[in-house]
Amino acid sequence: MEVSEKMYKLGTKRSAIRELFEFGKRKAAEIGKENVYDFSIGNPSIPAPDCVNEEIKRILTEEDPVAVHGYTSAQGDEATRKAIADYLNKKYETEFTPDNFYMTCGAAASLTIVFHSIVCSNEDEIMTAAPFFPEYKVFVEGTGAKLVVVDADKKNFEIDLKKSEELINEHTKAFIINSPNNPSGVVYSEDTIKALAELLDRKQKEYDHTIYLVTDEPYREIVYDGVEVPFVTKYYANTIVTYSYSKSLSLPGERIGWILVPDEVKDSKAVYAAVCGAGRTLGYVCAPSLMQKMLVKCVGQTGDVNEYKKNRDLLYNELKEIGYNLRKPEGAFYMFMEAPNGDSDEFSKRAMTENLLLVDADSFGCPGYVRISYCVDHDMIKRSLPAFKRLYDSYR
Amino acid sequence: MEVSEKMYKLGTKRSAIRELFEFGKRKAAEIGKENVYDFSIGNPSIPAPDCVNEEIKRILTEEDPVAVHGYTSAQGDEATRKAIADYLNKKYETEFTPDNFYMTCGAAASLTIVFHSIVCSNEDEIMTAAPFFPEYKVFVEGTGAKLVVVDADKKNFEIDLKKSEELINEHTKAFIINSPNNPSGVVYSEDTIKALAELLDRKQKEYDHTIYLVTDEPYREIVYDGVEVPFVTKYYANTIVTYSYSKSLSLPGERIGWILVPDEVKDSKAVYAAVCGAGRTLGYVCAPSLMQKMLVKCVGQTGDVNEYKKNRDLLYNELKEIGYNLRKPEGAFYMFMEAPNGDSDEFSKRAMTENLLLVDADSFGCPGYVRISYCVDHDMIKRSLPAFKRLYDSYR
Repeated sequence: MEVSEKMYKLGTKRSAIRELFEFGKRKAAEIGKENVYDFSIGNPSIPAPDCVNEEIKRILTEEDPVAVHGYTSAQGDEATRKAIADYLNKKYETEFTPDNFYMTCGAAASLTIVFHSIVCSNEDEIMTAAPFFPEYKVFVEGTGAKLVVVDADKKNFEIDLKKSEELINEHTKAFIINSPNNPSGVVYSEDTIKALAELLDRKQKEYDHTIYLVTDEPYREIVYDGVEVPFVTKYYANTIVTYSYSKSLSLPGERIGWILVPDEVKDSKAVYAAVCGAGRTLGYVCAPSLMQKMLVKCVGQTGDVNEYKKNRDLLYNELKEIGYNLRKPEGAFYMFMEAPNGDSDEFSKRAMTENLLLVDADSFGCPGYVRISYCVDHDMIKRSLPAFKRLYDSYR
Repeated sequence: MEVSEKMYKLGTKRSAIRELFEFGKRKAAEIGKENVYDFSIGNPSIPAPDCVNEEIKRILTEEDPVAVHGYTSAQGDEATRKAIADYLNKKYETEFTPDNFYMTCGAAASLTIVFHSIVCSNEDEIMTAAPFFPEYKVFVEGTGAKLVVVDADKKNFEIDLKKSEELINEHTKAFIINSPNNPSGVVYSEDTIKALAELLDRKQKEYDHTIYLVTDEPYREIVYDGVEVPFVTKYYANTIVTYSYSKSLSLPGERIGWILVPDEVKDSKAVYAAVCGAGRTLGYVCAPSLMQKMLVKCVGQTGDVNEYKKNRDLLYNELKEIGYNLRKPEGAFYMFMEAPNGDSDEFSKRAMTENLLLVDADSFGCPGYVRISYCVDHDMIKRSLPAFKRLYDSYR
């Protein structure tokens, strides 16, 4: 092979989700789209709030056309970073400045840039807790470092701190958490965050080097029943926050997000400089300018999250009633369900015979479970219920 | 240092262009913006063609709001890739299909993705010819490979093929060319492209492995007096084209471009797969979706290039008249001028005393010359001419 074998493999290996997607397309052609129940894709199903398109049109009509589409500074438009700082400061009583933020082309960019900025050697390890977003492995390994996974706490899908402690060692560079969680829908509790902060702080003293807590929180605003997502910078000084507007503003294709390096981070100016350097090396010149300018007005808004709540409530109640073992998610738009016989690979395949597309959570580091994305048409959920019932009954 | 030293350095080192920019800002505050003649920045000064904003507004008004801002496939929207293939096929009599294209977040992304996809070892070398865009070094070194620079051919700023041949060795993985060229404004002639193709073909046979010719051509449509830019895939089979709409559509902030892997490339499917894998590893999920959708209608359009031509003609004729030694650029929006005493560092500093901001071409691998960006207000050029005259006279 004359190209990079590593890149070739990453470019050819089909994900389980992709396989399901292709199956769904074939089936839809065969038996009609309305008879395929696709719970596999984690794309927002509600439109962006009106503010987004209205503001884009206003900018295109009223503002200097050369500046609108021009380069912003590499860190991002000053007005955009100020709007974000102001919003967070008001909501969380923090004291961020525009200079704490670096605008990015979405969550994946935020994560790759942070990992490239903090990894110093191939011996470095970055930890996460199962279940976790599978691309973490790709992004971490892209830096030469190793992703170390803490097994899932299957009781309540918080972070297993005892197992975490066993795995932390002198090579541990960072711990990455994702809350509200994809795929479990869990919002890590304040107690969990406090205990994790205590553990990391103890360990960074023991090893005499910084352990960063990287939080990946594109689902922050997608929560139900008034659940509060703890703002992690308030619990642990060496926290780096990564964010994206893909889910909150329903803009996954527009690639717009940010990295927050608070002043409390040790040598925060050096960390921020390394973030700038990593962005440059990876080819991120600036975040899309029109979207940055739109944010000045639309920061803090969301699509109609109540639509997801309606889906969650219907699906959770009905599946529980049928007899499935699953937990009620507090956030994001995923439900995590145990395979009735414990074999999630077999279960997701058997589900396909009922035209139900459920993702085996093996790739999320949690075999035995499936992920059900309920960012779907409400009527599709209704239509799918008899299929879920037949599927369950087939195990009795 | 607890962060990556390499990334920290890249994030803190100020470029010569940035220094000039800061100087210009200070001076403008002091003596008025109209008295500072800033020829340092390579940003389009003409607005995007009307089609762009009109089409964006139409899409936002008429199309499904969830799909408009939704993820496209990693390769990019099928309709967009088809529009690009159709346009090139018609213009250059090629036979590309949508599957030859991979949409990216602009030229820098195109280049980093290509470099990461083809580099297999830290011994790999990627060559370019001076003068060259300085970020090539950052992007190539980000893969672990080495950038090898062929000294400039100062007679006509084509590629010095004799020196190129001396530098090609068993580690040479690719040769990257940029035409129309930043900073020289040269469009490499068909003879040069043919001779380079012949050289690379001979060398890849000699070393029995592929040498890719990577072309970076964001300035392709910005040419004057009917000059033709040879389409390199027609001259050399193992050509990978990288492109961006930053210059042709005046959209540098929007981050939209593509990579073209023609079928003629050896093992083209594997190369394309490696491109997909590299995009994934670097955190590029998809190119901005709204901009992709806009392109279906606007591919092949440009801003009013005649504005640049007017600037070029005025500035070239006047500087020549004053006595400077410079070449008339056929493309892009840069002019390359010799420092009267041969010391471009001293010359660009002395120019600052006349409030003329000219970039020392040392960082472009070509000391002794300065780059003059004429993507500026036409009246600023007129106002600057006495300063250019005094500067020249100071060397007599």
